[in-house]
Amino acid sequence: MREIAIIGIGQTKIHEHWERSIRDLAGEAFFAALKDARRESVEALFLGNMLSGLIDQQNNLGTVVADWVGLKGEATKIESACSSGASAFRAGIIAVASGEIDSAMVVGVEKMTDAAPTEVTSALATAADSDWELEQGISFVGLNALIMRRYMYEYGWKHEDFAPFSINSHANAIHNPYARLPFAISAKQYTNSAMIAAPINLMDASPTGDGAAAALIVPFESVRGDKQAVQIAGSGAATDTISVHSRKTPLFLQAAYLSVERAYAQAGVAPDDIDFFELHDAFSIMTALSLEACGFAEKGQGPRLGLDDEIKIKGGRIPICTRGGLKARGHPVGATGMYQIVESVQQLRGECGETQVDGAKIGMAQNIGGSGASILTHILKIA
Amino acid sequence: MREIAIIGIGQTKIHEHWERSIRDLAGEAFFAALKDARRESVEALFLGNMLSGLIDQQNNLGTVVADWVGLKGEATKIESACSSGASAFRAGIIAVASGEIDSAMVVGVEKMTDAAPTEVTSALATAADSDWELEQGISFVGLNALIMRRYMYEYGWKHEDFAPFSINSHANAIHNPYARLPFAISAKQYTNSAMIAAPINLMDASPTGDGAAAALIVPFESVRGDKQAVQIAGSGAATDTISVHSRKTPLFLQAAYLSVERAYAQAGVAPDDIDFFELHDAFSIMTALSLEACGFAEKGQGPRLGLDDEIKIKGGRIPICTRGGLKARGHPVGATGMYQIVESVQQLRGECGETQVDGAKIGMAQNIGGSGASILTHILKIA
Repeated sequence: MREIAIIGIGQTKIHEHWERSIRDLAGEAFFAALKDARRESVEALFLGNMLSGLIDQQNNLGTVVADWVGLKGEATKIESACSSGASAFRAGIIAVASGEIDSAMVVGVEKMTDAAPTEVTSALATAADSDWELEQGISFVGLNALIMRRYMYEYGWKHEDFAPFSINSHANAIHNPYARLPFAISAKQYTNSAMIAAPINLMDASPTGDGAAAALIVPFESVRGDKQAVQIAGSGAATDTISVHSRKTPLFLQAAYLSVERAYAQAGVAPDDIDFFELHDAFSIMTALSLEACGFAEKGQGPRLGLDDEIKIKGGRIPICTRGGLKARGHPVGATGMYQIVESVQQLRGECGETQVDGAKIGMAQNIGGSGASILTHILKIA
Repeated sequence: MREIAIIGIGQTKIHEHWERSIRDLAGEAFFAALKDARRESVEALFLGNMLSGLIDQQNNLGTVVADWVGLKGEATKIESACSSGASAFRAGIIAVASGEIDSAMVVGVEKMTDAAPTEVTSALATAADSDWELEQGISFVGLNALIMRRYMYEYGWKHEDFAPFSINSHANAIHNPYARLPFAISAKQYTNSAMIAAPINLMDASPTGDGAAAALIVPFESVRGDKQAVQIAGSGAATDTISVHSRKTPLFLQAAYLSVERAYAQAGVAPDDIDFFELHDAFSIMTALSLEACGFAEKGQGPRLGLDDEIKIKGGRIPICTRGGLKARGHPVGATGMYQIVESVQQLRGECGETQVDGAKIGMAQNIGGSGASILTHILKIA
């Protein structure tokens, strides 16, 4: 396998794009990345998307988007629920690293606001186990609520101890022009927001939205010396049981652990080497579990990092969600993994202005599908 | 990229499996292939499926099946409508050929009979262009009917000239224990069967069904000398416009041409070297177009091969659909591409009994998604 790099990135604002189609959003990110890379074409498209079949009555979306952008090469759509973006990214990585192709555009795209909220909730529930979880009437947020409740009971945390995670994501999103919710929230707002599925309230949960993000992968050798090039140093993927109840414990993200260990080994780094971490804060409980599985906190001690200001961009040990995370940048599910990659590239290029992590050289992104069922971790770096 | 081979295959009968879940079907094919390969585990799963989100309310099916079979490695679901199976196969090929992993199980699976026929028709329509075709009220079979009508007008063929394609597929399916419709049909039955969308009648169209097929890919070096090993010699993928009306001509499968040219080049072979061809006879018109795009007939002359007995196993120039094709083996959409691969392996191993192509050394399989929108071609061989 040869070394590879990202040479271009693009993204749309995450928003309620009523007037635009899903292919149009994907196209915007595609062409933005192409322009950013100063290129005119690519060989292949890898597209991450979860819901176009259910919400837009459109399958074969890889081909639809390839057609829209004028690409006649191959197009592959990959779906692994909310980790679809990172799954597509990994497929693009392998295709270019193998030598099979010399350029791959990876696009994550989702358009969720064309359906009624109840339909979206039903559609998102397909990320859980249809036969053994959904049949019982539970929703996806309900599953996460059970995990959070158990975690609080087991380790003695109070709901307000999770507040720093959401406050941090919102504070960072203010400076991200592509963010869905670019405004600050206070501890009081966090505590007083509407309950969704106890103990998860509105400020523990990430918003849906429409959006697309893209990155162009090429052989590193072809762009060596280009200041814009960001190397892909590690890629790990793993799965866990699809049902939460089938796990030995619902309080440890085994697939996060397995995937990050692979990524660390491939990149030859350890948690201490990571300068920032774009993690999957779909719900605030997932932030805690992700930090723990990746070696930044002991089991059950994730919230401590928030309370001790260790997740902050200025002075924190491990800055997270530097562009707003899922909580405030937004969570257009199949696109999210690619937003994380695009944002990591922005950090490593030093393009993040007020939310720049000073001297960032190694960044990590982790994307979760289902309730921790499929997890992919990527490590990016600059020379 | 290193050389790779298929060392194990498995499949379920295509049927109305009312009593079984989609993961159960996928598991049967998975374990059959594992047993056939005399192995106990694999590193990764690549799963092709089109409709589980729409019909089974289950997304992230790669992870669901990985969980079901006890795999904790990575699992990737790939969807490209009716070519999902071959798309997953190609992803598995690249992953093993690259050296990233040393064994990949590729499973194609579909469960279609849990939904009402009208729901299935709606679900299948998502393979066409939702915004620019379906909005006009046309169905997927309707699109193929327009293509067939134009083809008959343009080249002067009568409906009955397509009969040999369907008769051949049914004749071959009799000897395939996994086939959906293992019975012969006569020319009269072909002509008199119920009209679906003129000029396509029931005997021009392939049946839906539930089924799964799997193949285990490993490095060729690790199985050199094993008589069961079948090499993967060529893999090509290409896309065309998603809408039929956007093409310069609806009567030439441009993506088939591009993908087969890549596969021929990679394998270092030409049409004359192909001993049999498992093509995508979802509708009889597709048989003609596929034969033409792949160099077996001049444009507009595909039906001639059927009329002249050139597609027959005994004595034909290019035997097709040797195990029944989509028409009679059945078309569980996202699984079909993997059935074609499994059947090609059976031929190359000499396991096809009465439908064995004598001395077959090189076989080709072609899987089509949408109305010719995404097409993958694979060439397999034995030493």
